[in-house]
Amino acid sequence: MGFPDAHGSTALLTDHYELTMLGSALADGTGDRQCVFEVFARRLPAGRRYGVVAGTARVLDAITDFRFTDAEIDQLAATAVVDDDTLSWLANYRFSGDADGYPEGELYFPGSPILTVRGSFAEGVLLETVALSILNHDSAIASAAARMSSAAHGRPIIEMGGRRTHEMAAVAAARAAYIGGFATTSNLEAGRRYGIPTRGTVAHAFMLLHDSEEDAFRAQVEKMGTDTTLLVDTYDITRGIETAVRVAGTELGAIRIDSGDVGVLARKAREQLDSLGARDTRIVVSGDLDEHAIAALRAEPVDAYGVGTSVVTGSGAPTAGMVYKLVEVDGRPVAKRSENKASRGGAKSALRRHKPTGTATEEVVYAAGQRPEAGEHDRELPIPLVRGGKPVDDLPTLDDSRQRLRDGLVSLPWEGLKLSGGEPAIPTVFPQEA
Amino acid sequence: MGFPDAHGSTALLTDHYELTMLGSALADGTGDRQCVFEVFARRLPAGRRYGVVAGTARVLDAITDFRFTDAEIDQLAATAVVDDDTLSWLANYRFSGDADGYPEGELYFPGSPILTVRGSFAEGVLLETVALSILNHDSAIASAAARMSSAAHGRPIIEMGGRRTHEMAAVAAARAAYIGGFATTSNLEAGRRYGIPTRGTVAHAFMLLHDSEEDAFRAQVEKMGTDTTLLVDTYDITRGIETAVRVAGTELGAIRIDSGDVGVLARKAREQLDSLGARDTRIVVSGDLDEHAIAALRAEPVDAYGVGTSVVTGSGAPTAGMVYKLVEVDGRPVAKRSENKASRGGAKSALRRHKPTGTATEEVVYAAGQRPEAGEHDRELPIPLVRGGKPVDDLPTLDDSRQRLRDGLVSLPWEGLKLSGGEPAIPTVFPQEA
Repeated sequence: MGFPDAHGSTALLTDHYELTMLGSALADGTGDRQCVFEVFARRLPAGRRYGVVAGTARVLDAITDFRFTDAEIDQLAATAVVDDDTLSWLANYRFSGDADGYPEGELYFPGSPILTVRGSFAEGVLLETVALSILNHDSAIASAAARMSSAAHGRPIIEMGGRRTHEMAAVAAARAAYIGGFATTSNLEAGRRYGIPTRGTVAHAFMLLHDSEEDAFRAQVEKMGTDTTLLVDTYDITRGIETAVRVAGTELGAIRIDSGDVGVLARKAREQLDSLGARDTRIVVSGDLDEHAIAALRAEPVDAYGVGTSVVTGSGAPTAGMVYKLVEVDGRPVAKRSENKASRGGAKSALRRHKPTGTATEEVVYAAGQRPEAGEHDRELPIPLVRGGKPVDDLPTLDDSRQRLRDGLVSLPWEGLKLSGGEPAIPTVFPQEA
Repeated sequence: MGFPDAHGSTALLTDHYELTMLGSALADGTGDRQCVFEVFARRLPAGRRYGVVAGTARVLDAITDFRFTDAEIDQLAATAVVDDDTLSWLANYRFSGDADGYPEGELYFPGSPILTVRGSFAEGVLLETVALSILNHDSAIASAAARMSSAAHGRPIIEMGGRRTHEMAAVAAARAAYIGGFATTSNLEAGRRYGIPTRGTVAHAFMLLHDSEEDAFRAQVEKMGTDTTLLVDTYDITRGIETAVRVAGTELGAIRIDSGDVGVLARKAREQLDSLGARDTRIVVSGDLDEHAIAALRAEPVDAYGVGTSVVTGSGAPTAGMVYKLVEVDGRPVAKRSENKASRGGAKSALRRHKPTGTATEEVVYAAGQRPEAGEHDRELPIPLVRGGKPVDDLPTLDDSRQRLRDGLVSLPWEGLKLSGGEPAIPTVFPQEA
């Protein structure tokens, strides 16, 4: 039972019905019809003003690794998911179509065409599950992280929630939080895989391991130097800070407080550190912080935040609720006609309108090929992602995505940055429906 | 950028600070101290009456695969996480200690010692992050799934939420939901990896792909036979059902309704199917169902449920909130002394007391080696999991875990199965504190 999966194909990270649909569509010839699939969110999570796209680069990797090797074929044959003709087709499967979409770090709103996939029905339908898994997860985390970064107002946040979520989700969450503006992560695999800077010093276990708090501090300073973060709340914080400065001296890098009323404690700690001459020693706080707690600490002498559970669980919205819908078949728009899940048929693109001051005013989602007139401050949103099955060159880097988000947040009307519940920061308009 | 991780080590699914603690503890000699670490939950998610343990077998796999190969060592060296002495130690790392814990499918309550790890500080501290990631995720899903299964009252539930969560979390979620009593999953990788039965037929895309609903139904029945599930809500449900029975005949296996007020629609559909002579055709409903929606459908003619988002996100509680705490060092109990996060020192075990009728009455968490008197209806909870670094033989199977949960739920006082918010179904008592 390999862990993580040993051979690297993403092809079975897929719902059973994608394969049975494929089998029927290959049999009756409809599998060859040229289709357009679109990923979008019908709405934002309750009360949210904006969403942040994340996961696109991981989707492209997943498409590249979407292969039915012998291992996958054997499994499908053994469980009778599809017939032999379909298995033969799958053995040769490679996505050969195109994709366009919002770059990572871009804001999105209800109806934004976040990813558009073009290809035969057979090729495109198979990608639904894994594309949605990645975009729904990563965008949920990035959206929560952006709210926290915005609330932190420039103070750095370390992502440290890996232990509260699935072990591989943790790696993707660290990446998404970094896109969302976090400064660093505790997750070592995210450091290896994505080059995100990792941080960490000690936990309470290290304090308890030693015969005294002083022994623990000495061991840590001996090993890591004085520019380290001493955890001062294992026993009594006031005595902890006193001991910390005695051991490390006034050049002590930082202290961390992980429990209690951290606002009050930070203020007291600042006074105590200053009175001890440790004026440059920073104060890091952690412990069940979310965007609201961070905002409430804005006036307190906190230098950095550690955020765990709330960011990796999307702070109340653990999934972005995006869907992957067939919108066009052989050039003809198609859409389901149910009451509460109505969709808009046809391939689409989008641009965002802005005032001359740079403030965003609306998300314009238009029928592909029918671009409305755009002003000099308006901006086309989707970019090419895949051509002929291959990811395009020069895709945005993680740093590009972080910058894109910063620019996007600055462009929002001020109400759009409020943490309280409300409407989307800008309306989505569909000019072809007007 | 391999996806999933190509070489199979779990060692970097770890927080940075585990490594820096290790470095300091190896340097000052405390790393050799014999320690006991304990995984427990301080409380259940708000209002929940019980939790369900899941993930233990995956933790054992992760421990087995926790190796610092050249790839991990190079990464740690390049990012200066630890020094050369620590790197040499890591290159030889294999967990050689013991572990005991609650088997999967067992109920747990606040303070239940879900996993106990014994070994040197150095060996045990490294496992914290990955053990918590797995147990927190999988137990959250299994706990939500158990509530849904209980609400479904014997009707089968298919797990189909993979697209709403991280692509690898999806596989683990399918497994946890299966432990929680779900009948099947849509996730093909969960089928391969864990032997869970997979199911699926078609999505709305298949309907829209075809020139008419009738064409789509014919293609599906042609390929999959009449014992299939036709999706009848793409256009008009009444006409959909009429067409479905015309195409497949009265031996049609099932219809699926995925939108609208599914209770009302199921009742109308049942009448229509019966009037058409399709008395054995089952009705499957899906679309944003959670345990409350399922309970509300108990009186309706529904034969099976499809559940997605709510189960893979833990139905409001996406993480179980378990912690991994150092509780004993060289035989001496240790515990942090903060106000709101007090922990109990010392290695522990647990038994569950029952009335002669089999109804559980309390969770007794006692100091290891000080087992209180137990009656014939009481049951010791932890089982041996790892000895000398190796998983023990004959660990419970997934079927064992499903049965254990069924037995556990039957043993709860009746209030314990209520879906509404309340106290834990049974109290946790700590006899050594009395």
